[in-house]
Amino acid sequence: MTTLSAPRSDAEATTTVVVPLAGKAYDILIGPGLIARAGAEIAARFPGARASIVTDDTVAGHLAGALNASLEAAGLEPQTIVVPAGEKTKSFAVLETVVDGLIAQRRERGDLVVALGGGVIGDLAGFAASITRRGMRFVQIPTSLLAQVDSSVGGKTGINTPRGKNLVGTFHQPSLVLADTDALASLSPRHLRAGYAEVAKYGLIDDAPFFAWLERNHGEVLARGPALTHAVATSCRAKARVVVADEFETTGARALLNLGHTFGHALEASTGYGERLIHGEGVAIGMAQAFRFSASLGLCAPADAERVAAHLAAAGLPTRLADIPGDVADDETLIALMGQDKKVKRGRLTFILARGIGEAYVANDVPPDAVRAFLATERTL
Amino acid sequence: MTTLSAPRSDAEATTTVVVPLAGKAYDILIGPGLIARAGAEIAARFPGARASIVTDDTVAGHLAGALNASLEAAGLEPQTIVVPAGEKTKSFAVLETVVDGLIAQRRERGDLVVALGGGVIGDLAGFAASITRRGMRFVQIPTSLLAQVDSSVGGKTGINTPRGKNLVGTFHQPSLVLADTDALASLSPRHLRAGYAEVAKYGLIDDAPFFAWLERNHGEVLARGPALTHAVATSCRAKARVVVADEFETTGARALLNLGHTFGHALEASTGYGERLIHGEGVAIGMAQAFRFSASLGLCAPADAERVAAHLAAAGLPTRLADIPGDVADDETLIALMGQDKKVKRGRLTFILARGIGEAYVANDVPPDAVRAFLATERTL
Repeated sequence: MTTLSAPRSDAEATTTVVVPLAGKAYDILIGPGLIARAGAEIAARFPGARASIVTDDTVAGHLAGALNASLEAAGLEPQTIVVPAGEKTKSFAVLETVVDGLIAQRRERGDLVVALGGGVIGDLAGFAASITRRGMRFVQIPTSLLAQVDSSVGGKTGINTPRGKNLVGTFHQPSLVLADTDALASLSPRHLRAGYAEVAKYGLIDDAPFFAWLERNHGEVLARGPALTHAVATSCRAKARVVVADEFETTGARALLNLGHTFGHALEASTGYGERLIHGEGVAIGMAQAFRFSASLGLCAPADAERVAAHLAAAGLPTRLADIPGDVADDETLIALMGQDKKVKRGRLTFILARGIGEAYVANDVPPDAVRAFLATERTL
Repeated sequence: MTTLSAPRSDAEATTTVVVPLAGKAYDILIGPGLIARAGAEIAARFPGARASIVTDDTVAGHLAGALNASLEAAGLEPQTIVVPAGEKTKSFAVLETVVDGLIAQRRERGDLVVALGGGVIGDLAGFAASITRRGMRFVQIPTSLLAQVDSSVGGKTGINTPRGKNLVGTFHQPSLVLADTDALASLSPRHLRAGYAEVAKYGLIDDAPFFAWLERNHGEVLARGPALTHAVATSCRAKARVVVADEFETTGARALLNLGHTFGHALEASTGYGERLIHGEGVAIGMAQAFRFSASLGLCAPADAERVAAHLAAAGLPTRLADIPGDVADDETLIALMGQDKKVKRGRLTFILARGIGEAYVANDVPPDAVRAFLATERTL
């Protein structure tokens, strides 16, 4: 349990998490007021660099002005590239627009791309940074809880194609991440809860005490109190550990981050990646399913699966197929959508299963038939 | 001087150069018959991988069939993606086509993209490999002398944009390079000579004995005799040394490879990157100019500059502005084109200059006025 006493200033309330990658270590700063301090934090680390802000037309309205002023005051000569909000922006066409904008602004390799927005912006801007002049530096300023605890850390960038999500991209680590908890003030409760699913994921993967802490404190986290900073910092620390162990997704350690994502992505894909089921909601159902699947295979106690679902439901998240509005695609469609996923390895399915809360592991050879049998029982919940 | 006795088989005639990059070392095989042996060489190194050939519609006609048969026989389940020949293929649009083809062929991260062609194909296919599923492995099978001695080694990939060449791309090392000297049989004498300019470059950078060897043996190299394999292997070895010293172009060592390229790129750009002046010809003029510029600044002996130009001319390469057919752009246009180049650093120009043959170095702060004065004298040659 962390004791939280009131800090006297924003800087004092800031937590720093270091991602200690050899030759490219970077800081994640977490706390209030970081957008206002962004110019100073960036200029202190990258003297002489100029900055191009990439953001979307929603975020541009309420946060880009403050960021621009902060960068301007610090001498970073900011210019801004605004793209449409939404998942469709993760496309080759918009990528080309952003890259062209960076070149038109005559940015060089040592200059900075500053991604201001949610996961879509971070993935797109990071990808653009990684391929412009064969690699510019970039700074993540994630403005959603989902992006703060997941996509802004670890260096995965990418876009979608008509054949699937995130099929094109790079590994390109940011040089700095500024997770301004004030930016979450304008996030809708639904999107805050969706991001919370990824927070809970870190407890479920390998940190049972953190999951227990969330069971006691999720009310304060979702009320955006000081506990939120602790939840974000703990999540970033967990993500950093995994990323350092498996920067390029080769050792298998990073696969644990996909807990809930094989089921979750299939559900998202089957509902068209829209408002019916947003990413964190798909992950919440997927995590509940991963634990129920593990229990049905005799891997973990049924009580653990029930505890996972109970906590996610208490946080206002969906946990069953029946929680998805409208009809859910049939089993074969869902399995095919799992098969299209990058986690397939020559026909066998990879799932992240669990031996208990905080004991997730990678199961590489789940037969499609076991999934079919499990899905049949899911229809009855 | 290397003594070359007749080998009894293609395998015996093969030279192997290792690029000893930590964690991603790879072999460059140089010699005859390598396309026919490609399947065996690849399968031995990457068991279980499948291969997608990327080639252009010129090369497809005479080499892709043999490569496909070799990969097929080795169980690599080859499929082929054919793109139009020519520099225009290095575009976002064609990149998207290649990436989409790889995904449609359901290639995974451990599968191989096999680039069969000249520098355009290697740059494009390598870029596609680096961003498909966040990085597939790839094999370079360069079919031009230029690609064999330069672009296929070192991991630079990329495309052009309307704002400039190679402004978008990645560093992505190949997993294997097969430089089949038989593939050069169909290369036009002009393109062979153009590639030879990059061979000579390695002597000029830091290997005066190799330059002297070329002065004696260029006839046999250009006649595609056994000396050609030695010239390619020596060039690849030189390139490998530089790449290992400076994989991501951060230490400055790699900049030496740009000898002749600041002038050369400007000339190429001013002539529209077309048949009037192909890349190696631009480099030949650029190298002769770099030495004359060095001599005019009192950095190297005028006799060295004369020796460089004499050798390049003996190899049938252009060395003066007057050797370019038609009108040459004016000085300000050329300087602006140099300024657009990635080698610009805040207004000062970077040139690779030389204190003598085999003694090139990076000069970071050449004032534009010194270039103007030098270009005026170049008009009189």
